[in-house]
Amino acid sequence: MRILIINPNTSEDFTRKIAESVQTYAKISSEVVTMTAVSGPRSIECVYDELLSAQGTLEVFLSQKDQFDGFIFACYSDHPVVYAAREITGKPAMGIAEASMHMACLLGHRFSVVTTNDEWEPLLWDAARHYGLESRCASIRTTGLPVLALEEKSDGEVQSLIEKAARLAVEEDGAEVICLGCAGMTGLDKRLEKTLGVPVLDGVVCALKIMEGLIAYGAQTSKVRTYSRPQEKELVDLKDIFREGYR
Amino acid sequence: MRILIINPNTSEDFTRKIAESVQTYAKISSEVVTMTAVSGPRSIECVYDELLSAQGTLEVFLSQKDQFDGFIFACYSDHPVVYAAREITGKPAMGIAEASMHMACLLGHRFSVVTTNDEWEPLLWDAARHYGLESRCASIRTTGLPVLALEEKSDGEVQSLIEKAARLAVEEDGAEVICLGCAGMTGLDKRLEKTLGVPVLDGVVCALKIMEGLIAYGAQTSKVRTYSRPQEKELVDLKDIFREGYR
Amino acid sequence: MRILIINPNTSEDFTRKIAESVQTYAKISSEVVTMTAVSGPRSIECVYDELLSAQGTLEVFLSQKDQFDGFIFACYSDHPVVYAAREITGKPAMGIAEASMHMACLLGHRFSVVTTNDEWEPLLWDAARHYGLESRCASIRTTGLPVLALEEKSDGEVQSLIEKAARLAVEEDGAEVICLGCAGMTGLDKRLEKTLGVPVLDGVVCALKIMEGLIAYGAQTSKVRTYSRPQEKELVDLKDIFREGYR
Amino acid sequence: MRILIINPNTSEDFTRKIAESVQTYAKISSEVVTMTAVSGPRSIECVYDELLSAQGTLEVFLSQKDQFDGFIFACYSDHPVVYAAREITGKPAMGIAEASMHMACLLGHRFSVVTTNDEWEPLLWDAARHYGLESRCASIRTTGLPVLALEEKSDGEVQSLIEKAARLAVEEDGAEVICLGCAGMTGLDKRLEKTLGVPVLDGVVCALKIMEGLIAYGAQTSKVRTYSRPQEKELVDLKDIFREGYR
Amino acid sequence: MRILIINPNTSEDFTRKIAESVQTYAKISSEVVTMTAVSGPRSIECVYDELLSAQGTLEVFLSQKDQFDGFIFACYSDHPVVYAAREITGKPAMGIAEASMHMACLLGHRFSVVTTNDEWEPLLWDAARHYGLESRCASIRTTGLPVLALEEKSDGEVQSLIEKAARLAVEEDGAEVICLGCAGMTGLDKRLEKTLGVPVLDGVVCALKIMEGLIAYGAQTSKVRTYSRPQEKELVDLKDIFREGYR
Amino acid sequence: MRILIINPNTSEDFTRKIAESVQTYAKISSEVVTMTAVSGPRSIECVYDELLSAQGTLEVFLSQKDQFDGFIFACYSDHPVVYAAREITGKPAMGIAEASMHMACLLGHRFSVVTTNDEWEPLLWDAARHYGLESRCASIRTTGLPVLALEEKSDGEVQSLIEKAARLAVEEDGAEVICLGCAGMTGLDKRLEKTLGVPVLDGVVCALKIMEGLIAYGAQTSKVRTYSRPQEKELVDLKDIFREGYR
Repeated sequence: MRILIINPNTSEDFTRKIAESVQTYAKISSEVVTMTAVSGPRSIECVYDELLSAQGTLEVFLSQKDQFDGFIFACYSDHPVVYAAREITGKPAMGIAEASMHMACLLGHRFSVVTTNDEWEPLLWDAARHYGLESRCASIRTTGLPVLALEEKSDGEVQSLIEKAARLAVEEDGAEVICLGCAGMTGLDKRLEKTLGVPVLDGVVCALKIMEGLIAYGAQTSKVRTYSRPQEKELVDLKDIFREGYR
Repeated sequence: MRILIINPNTSEDFTRKIAESVQTYAKISSEVVTMTAVSGPRSIECVYDELLSAQGTLEVFLSQKDQFDGFIFACYSDHPVVYAAREITGKPAMGIAEASMHMACLLGHRFSVVTTNDEWEPLLWDAARHYGLESRCASIRTTGLPVLALEEKSDGEVQSLIEKAARLAVEEDGAEVICLGCAGMTGLDKRLEKTLGVPVLDGVVCALKIMEGLIAYGAQTSKVRTYSRPQEKELVDLKDIFREGYR
Repeated sequence: MRILIINPNTSEDFTRKIAESVQTYAKISSEVVTMTAVSGPRSIECVYDELLSAQGTLEVFLSQKDQFDGFIFACYSDHPVVYAAREITGKPAMGIAEASMHMACLLGHRFSVVTTNDEWEPLLWDAARHYGLESRCASIRTTGLPVLALEEKSDGEVQSLIEKAARLAVEEDGAEVICLGCAGMTGLDKRLEKTLGVPVLDGVVCALKIMEGLIAYGAQTSKVRTYSRPQEKELVDLKDIFREGYR
Repeated sequence: MRILIINPNTSEDFTRKIAESVQTYAKISSEVVTMTAVSGPRSIECVYDELLSAQGTLEVFLSQKDQFDGFIFACYSDHPVVYAAREITGKPAMGIAEASMHMACLLGHRFSVVTTNDEWEPLLWDAARHYGLESRCASIRTTGLPVLALEEKSDGEVQSLIEKAARLAVEEDGAEVICLGCAGMTGLDKRLEKTLGVPVLDGVVCALKIMEGLIAYGAQTSKVRTYSRPQEKELVDLKDIFREGYR
Repeated sequence: MRILIINPNTSEDFTRKIAESVQTYAKISSEVVTMTAVSGPRSIECVYDELLSAQGTLEVFLSQKDQFDGFIFACYSDHPVVYAAREITGKPAMGIAEASMHMACLLGHRFSVVTTNDEWEPLLWDAARHYGLESRCASIRTTGLPVLALEEKSDGEVQSLIEKAARLAVEEDGAEVICLGCAGMTGLDKRLEKTLGVPVLDGVVCALKIMEGLIAYGAQTSKVRTYSRPQEKELVDLKDIFREGYR
Repeated sequence: MRILIINPNTSEDFTRKIAESVQTYAKISSEVVTMTAVSGPRSIECVYDELLSAQGTLEVFLSQKDQFDGFIFACYSDHPVVYAAREITGKPAMGIAEASMHMACLLGHRFSVVTTNDEWEPLLWDAARHYGLESRCASIRTTGLPVLALEEKSDGEVQSLIEKAARLAVEEDGAEVICLGCAGMTGLDKRLEKTLGVPVLDGVVCALKIMEGLIAYGAQTSKVRTYSRPQEKELVDLKDIFREGYR
């Protein structure tokens, strides 16, 4: 089976980290390819960034959609490209936030997300509510770090900030599982698990393992109602590749 | 006061209809300008269309943001450009779906939305939930019409399909107010009100009247947390205008 | 257009303050009249007070209902006279709590209310839930002040107590917008906005601006189901004016 | 123990029916007295009626509050006098709607209410939500009958209309228990139970039995926060008896 | 009337305490018998314990079900034997957690439960949600005590730990009523009420008083859908008594 | 990796069917063993059946817990043995209902469950609510078939009843994905998918694929709070094997 992971951030550094993480966990029989959005902001910290990343991410998706069996969008948010991808193809498509939140529900009563800048707190609450998992979410804790600090700061510094926020989530908010709330945090899960004493989930790995399961099962996205195929219409001043979304 | 209404659909026909509607209701002291997204699909019927319309809508917004006092996005959905606009400016910004749903709550116990193609049923339920108004929403009823049928079919035909769906909402779902769920339905409100016997709201007018109120009151978008200004970052392969979002 | 604001508290001092506030914000074309309930308690601090104020407030409403185009009840609670008024007339009727909570939703992700005595905390949570806006409400914060202290204490003292509670709402509860939770706080909004750095809403002004919009739009209360006209019945030992509610 | 049941409707016929019902079920050791509001509408069919009944009901309560150990308000609604009574006294006070809904939860998974005119459908949903029991409520079904038809129509006619609505609640809405949604329906419970084959609850009896339990247990209304005693304040143009509420 | 209280814990000490409590409050006309599960763990502190107690509790219930008019299961949890009992018999059956939570709703706006070991916090939140009373629950506070410490520690020590947790519930969580969250805490209610100044409920007494009311009213469990009688089927390697559940 | 699937029903026929299903989908590297509860009812149709199956299922689990890496309980319900297993071991444990509901959320907006006898409708709504997925569940549809009819009736008959219920779920309730709500329905998924045109999920396969993912990822159940290890206590009249739960 062939799985494509698209990084909607244009940070090649994050894409590299993600590629490393998945190599550890991908099944022998899976071929996992990691690509970066062809245009957009280097990091995604708000809805504006998200929208600027959408076309560059969709371009990659549209040009590759016939070559892969499943698609993962490696931005820890309720990124709308996931829904667009589900409309366009019947092959499974998934975000890393929803993957980790659903998996967390199978490991503990409530989970918390530990993420970067403060804007993500309301945005990820909205995501949890959108997934229907609000009652399973203990809290969204932010470290206050900008996303790109994950490239620049030492792993030790980053880890200690995440650890501090995660410990508060466990002790004060009732979290039993921690979800790492940024694609750029990939690779820190097992180290944090040791110091925190609770499961710590990397969304990229969660999405990969669930995706392998969906593909092995032959499970497809429903084409009834919500994710029915987009109807073709005139496109004004957009690249030709976007016509592919209507085919 | 100067208000800008941006139509994220690239249908000039809809923009013209919207402009006509607002002329009837705009205050003498308001200058209301209506513009069309510079790129994107002719109509918006799913998340993919929404994302394709985002950059072309934001371009208009970014180039005009210093010339107006408030911004209305005339697509009946939880369109993410509204949130991006709130991040970028402190001046009020609003979608027509949220405007009509909030106004409906002041006129009846529960409202229904009558809209076009079936994909909008789950998407507008998600919107109502996102606005926090799920318990006030009786139903989302679709006519099954593609959005552009509103350009092509006669007003009489369109009106009779909406009327039928609205009547079911009132009689079977417990709706007491009807919201017209598409910018292209603008202008039909008062005619439908007569035949249905319940208030019928045009989202564009609702947004206009609330926007005039907000501006007159001097009310601004909160810049704390959710809508704090986007932090500047490197943009890969995007038009220069998008740097304006970080200033 | 003619708008009537009725103060259900029998404090003439509050009525005067309200009248002053609205003069600043009323449209040139609006005539806004402010009246006081003809009987009832000087201030409203609990359900008992609310019920004692109901008949005296309704008397004013019933005697004036044909002279005005819209009605605002200036008590920051889910005061039941609003619902009675919507049953009796098709012209728009509104409370100041619901007006400010709906408006707050358009300016930030979540709002808090800052109010007077502690009984209002559970009562205003119930109100937010009744309006359907519970998920948009970050907290109800009380200053512990009795309502009439707003007449007696200096503006500076009152302002500093509200500011303290509001700051906690922003910093600890995640509020992005503050609603002033008492008609007696009218006039403090802009001053608090400066020191707090987030939007601060005066419910009377919110209701006025939305009411002007509803009247300009020609929007009426739905007479289907919830607000259908009361059926006439025998009244025992009540003033004749109350028969007007059935006509 | 002495229990006072106050009928907020000024229909003496309903008061007599209620008195008959409770005689069948009152404990030997209980003295149960039934009184009628001294002023107000003959029947309560909307919020306006409810407010007109409030002062006349409170007058009875205030004049009797020292003579009884518990107070039942026999109107099937979320009548605000219940909350006023809880503020004024520490002795238990209860409405018949909340009593029957709580009791129904102990007898089946979900309950439906069968009531009179259509306005009660939204009002009783709001009541169920206010009590926190929304998820236990299958439906509110109305017979369309005006309240006073319960005095005028034959028992057979009334029973057959209720039975029809109740059957739909059981078969289509998933109700497992039926609550009779009007004080005027008292006495029909056991007959309907036979024909319907599910438990049918009379709110007056439910309230009586729970009240006897509360009094026997010595349970009192909490005086912390919500139901703390009303603070005395100047009353304009109200009968002297209402000063009793502040003592 | 004859009421059977079964203690699912095999601690005879708790059974004795329960028996003492009910003697104080049982009606003269009631015969209340208290029995202990014939097998199972001495105390119930988690789901595993709960399941180990189920068969031993059901054995008692099945052998006694024809001799009593109502059944109370004295474990402060959402113990599944309550639902099994409701399936098997039409006579009322009740747990002490649901009884106290419903009763608490009639005495204050929100209640808190004070219980023993920390596992109960998530489990009792789930219970409150299952009963539909989540919005009425202010908090679940744990003392950290193992259940059997209630046998071993002095009453004074136990009471002071409960009092401390209850005070936090009232002051920080907004609780207006306290429910004692363990059958082993029976008898402490009135003493704690004095020091705390809010109503304190013993679940055993709540269940007893509501049960007396249900029996006096002749109210039965609904046999439609959820609690319809179990269909007989082959039982592998179970005691004969369990066949009684299908008769 | 070694995965144990325990069938809590004592129907060997179901166990065989389950074993066949998993052989098709198990990874080459997985060893999947299927066992039957050593005591209990042949099928599980209500809470009473569930409780009778608990000890016999736990016995199998306790005797095998050191030989396997993950545990699946093949009863389509919120069976409490899942929670007991999570308390006893840190290795992942899962029910087939939660597995299929979480997976369904990644394939469509809302799912419906199609199951056997009518009692499951309320019980599976409770399960969906307990998992936090209520807002993603469109409906629970029952075929009215007793569970064991799945052994006795022809596949064609069974399939046609399920198909009919599923079609109603898709057309009337808004379901986009169907979950087969009984372990005995295993093997029908792909055939139904063809006729229905929407994804149809077999809970056993869903649980298997997610379990393989969890084990490959090294994800463990959180031992903080809810699933902390049971504290040892005296067991009265229970088999010795149950002591293993405390070790």
